[in-house]
Amino acid sequence: MSQRRQLNLNLFIYPGGHHEAAWRYKGSAASRALDISYYQQLARTAEHYTFDAIFFADGPALADNVRYAQRFRFEPITWLSAIAAATSRIGLIGTASTTYHEPYNLARLYASLDHLSGGRAGWNIVTTSAPQAAQNFGLPEHPDHHERYERAKEFLDVVTALWDSWEDDAVVNDPASGIFADTDKVHPLNHVGKHFRVRGPLNVPRSPQGRPVYVQAGSSEDGRAFAARFAEAIFTAHQTLASAQEFYADIKRQARALDRNPDHVKILPGISPFIGSTQAEADRLQEEFNDLIQPEYSLVQLRQMLGLDLSGFDLDGPFPRHLIETDGARGVASRFKLVVDIVDREKPTIRQLIQRLAGARGHWVIAGPPEKIADNIQTWFENGAADGFNVMPPWLPGGFDLFAEHVVPILRKRGLFREEYSGKTLREHYGLERPASLYSHQVQAIA
Amino acid sequence: MSQRRQLNLNLFIYPGGHHEAAWRYKGSAASRALDISYYQQLARTAEHYTFDAIFFADGPALADNVRYAQRFRFEPITWLSAIAAATSRIGLIGTASTTYHEPYNLARLYASLDHLSGGRAGWNIVTTSAPQAAQNFGLPEHPDHHERYERAKEFLDVVTALWDSWEDDAVVNDPASGIFADTDKVHPLNHVGKHFRVRGPLNVPRSPQGRPVYVQAGSSEDGRAFAARFAEAIFTAHQTLASAQEFYADIKRQARALDRNPDHVKILPGISPFIGSTQAEADRLQEEFNDLIQPEYSLVQLRQMLGLDLSGFDLDGPFPRHLIETDGARGVASRFKLVVDIVDREKPTIRQLIQRLAGARGHWVIAGPPEKIADNIQTWFENGAADGFNVMPPWLPGGFDLFAEHVVPILRKRGLFREEYSGKTLREHYGLERPASLYSHQVQAIA
Repeated sequence: MSQRRQLNLNLFIYPGGHHEAAWRYKGSAASRALDISYYQQLARTAEHYTFDAIFFADGPALADNVRYAQRFRFEPITWLSAIAAATSRIGLIGTASTTYHEPYNLARLYASLDHLSGGRAGWNIVTTSAPQAAQNFGLPEHPDHHERYERAKEFLDVVTALWDSWEDDAVVNDPASGIFADTDKVHPLNHVGKHFRVRGPLNVPRSPQGRPVYVQAGSSEDGRAFAARFAEAIFTAHQTLASAQEFYADIKRQARALDRNPDHVKILPGISPFIGSTQAEADRLQEEFNDLIQPEYSLVQLRQMLGLDLSGFDLDGPFPRHLIETDGARGVASRFKLVVDIVDREKPTIRQLIQRLAGARGHWVIAGPPEKIADNIQTWFENGAADGFNVMPPWLPGGFDLFAEHVVPILRKRGLFREEYSGKTLREHYGLERPASLYSHQVQAIA
Repeated sequence: MSQRRQLNLNLFIYPGGHHEAAWRYKGSAASRALDISYYQQLARTAEHYTFDAIFFADGPALADNVRYAQRFRFEPITWLSAIAAATSRIGLIGTASTTYHEPYNLARLYASLDHLSGGRAGWNIVTTSAPQAAQNFGLPEHPDHHERYERAKEFLDVVTALWDSWEDDAVVNDPASGIFADTDKVHPLNHVGKHFRVRGPLNVPRSPQGRPVYVQAGSSEDGRAFAARFAEAIFTAHQTLASAQEFYADIKRQARALDRNPDHVKILPGISPFIGSTQAEADRLQEEFNDLIQPEYSLVQLRQMLGLDLSGFDLDGPFPRHLIETDGARGVASRFKLVVDIVDREKPTIRQLIQRLAGARGHWVIAGPPEKIADNIQTWFENGAADGFNVMPPWLPGGFDLFAEHVVPILRKRGLFREEYSGKTLREHYGLERPASLYSHQVQAIA
């Protein structure tokens, strides 16, 4: 009997949780936000519940609204390396920017993480949308969206070739003969492109997964095309089933058109669940969080999403929809349309919009008892909207504990989620093949 | 009664050990060279013997002679992050290049390592001498020595300001008031220099040590001046007491001239000990290693040190001293003079020179019983040649076990090395003060 199709579940970790006021909630671990043991413990809980992976976002600039929330950012690859040492099976996905890294350095960081974790590394590929990052890297201005994606494509070609530059059997490691590496199987790239000139080979032998898992989160036209071509898992934000279905169908179609197996492109929307034993209790919990919102913080978030500064406006007045069209402003591409759709659908006041977005920066927020959460997950999963989810607990660790203890057992009972790991690597958890090296059928000597 | 001045001891880790044929020796852990648990175990042994730190070298290019030895390079910061999670007191020093990193990225990596290790990070600052690195980073050629040091100086100014950009009390983290950061104490740099334009602030709060420990290894004129100005610990290679004394006196003098406390510049020569219960046994052990040397490998090493290709020459003929002068070739600046001095002093054949350098790439190799090793350490320590040592076992783990089990107890009995840790951070192990933030007396708002 063939096994039922299985959900993939990741735990997306923000210091205090994903609601923008999470760190102020009495149950959050605000005081431990700088402490690696807190993150190691979260990862161990997720591993205990057989999650596919944990996930860290990233950006190389300080958020403007750090005054009002825990918006610092540890460097994810160091953090994941320390978490790797405290876990044994769970995948480790870190975000890093193709705009603000050199491919040789990035390839080494992730190859090393893949080695030290025994094949559990994933790279969430971003081009960085925060314009202030440019000023930390000597650029006169942040490169535009199209240019960033163009660089990203070449970047991917280069790091892929670097990860493949040692064939799997290049390491001989034979003390008797004195041969460590069969250098006929260690290949220079000699890449010469518009953005990069990289000779190679990498100075790290091929890693357990061959290549770390390629994760991506773009939602713009360029972002979708990039994801369909390169991504093996896609994180995406949707407020409605219909929106998620449209995205799902589009990506799978584009992947098919590129001769890729669409099952090897996992689509994982974000979900931020407020869980109570009754609907009323879950709603009250969500209200408790919304009461902790600081509008000074939220307006900066909104400015980043829309490119529109609403400070000074009456929070309880209507959202000034006309300003979006007249300004033609654009913020983060993956969020702009989503927020405008909410405005058009729900006609909120500014305060209502802020609350709507406070839960998880535009991701799907749902409140209810565990059965309802599980039902919704199953509906999206079985109706062409998701292959799994990026779970974004409103607060941590308690908000995740509720999901793990009450929702996961329901999903397991329904046969939708594993009872135990069958594989050891992140590729195995996701059902992805281990890629052969690009060079595996060439004969070419190292210079 | 004041305590006697104490040695600082680091364990310098190369996969199979420091002798170039170490990985071929029957006692080396050649088969575990790609396994993080092997390195975690080495670090735990060093911690058990209260060593100050472990140390990893690095370079962003594949060595030309990887065919004949384990000359791959894991990325040290990921590696150290995973080791941090398996240890609690030992310092963690990783090498990274100022020529091939962006300061914002590097500052985050080390600040994160310092956070996750509870204040145990050290950065060995190098400018990278291997010319092939340039070709992995799109540079038409490797920048010359002077230019690399010029960039390094500005790089240091930038990362220092980034590490200081959050004052120590900038993190308020008060859920009740909703203030996470006192942004009057989070400072942009607005650095504009010849090589870098960096706005800042860093997106990581100030780390436990304030700044990771600054380690350096330059021996050229530029390198010494740089070390005297910035370094808190210096790794250095000397074949003789006289050479080490000259270096020690020069650095301390230069530090004093810059108004630095010379005690806060620890000078740590490399030492590679072959230990036997008798002199004859130690000598036989060293011969056993020399019998495993592969000249194909050694000649590449020599070419890198001297810029001179001797393949094709009779290994048992005299070293062609005249070629150095006529070619005027230069390899790695910190080794060139050292090797030429050996040639002039000992008039070796090529094979003899290769054996002389095979032990630890030009570092001090000494063979003998434990008492003799301890005597020599004490002589250097008490005669103005060293504040401690970078211990470079010929092979691992056995070569280190011998040192730890037989030499450390003698040093302790003589009151020269700690019986237990008195501090928790690497700065505390080295007796270095925790630096105040550059910004700690300014009042300046985040823009």
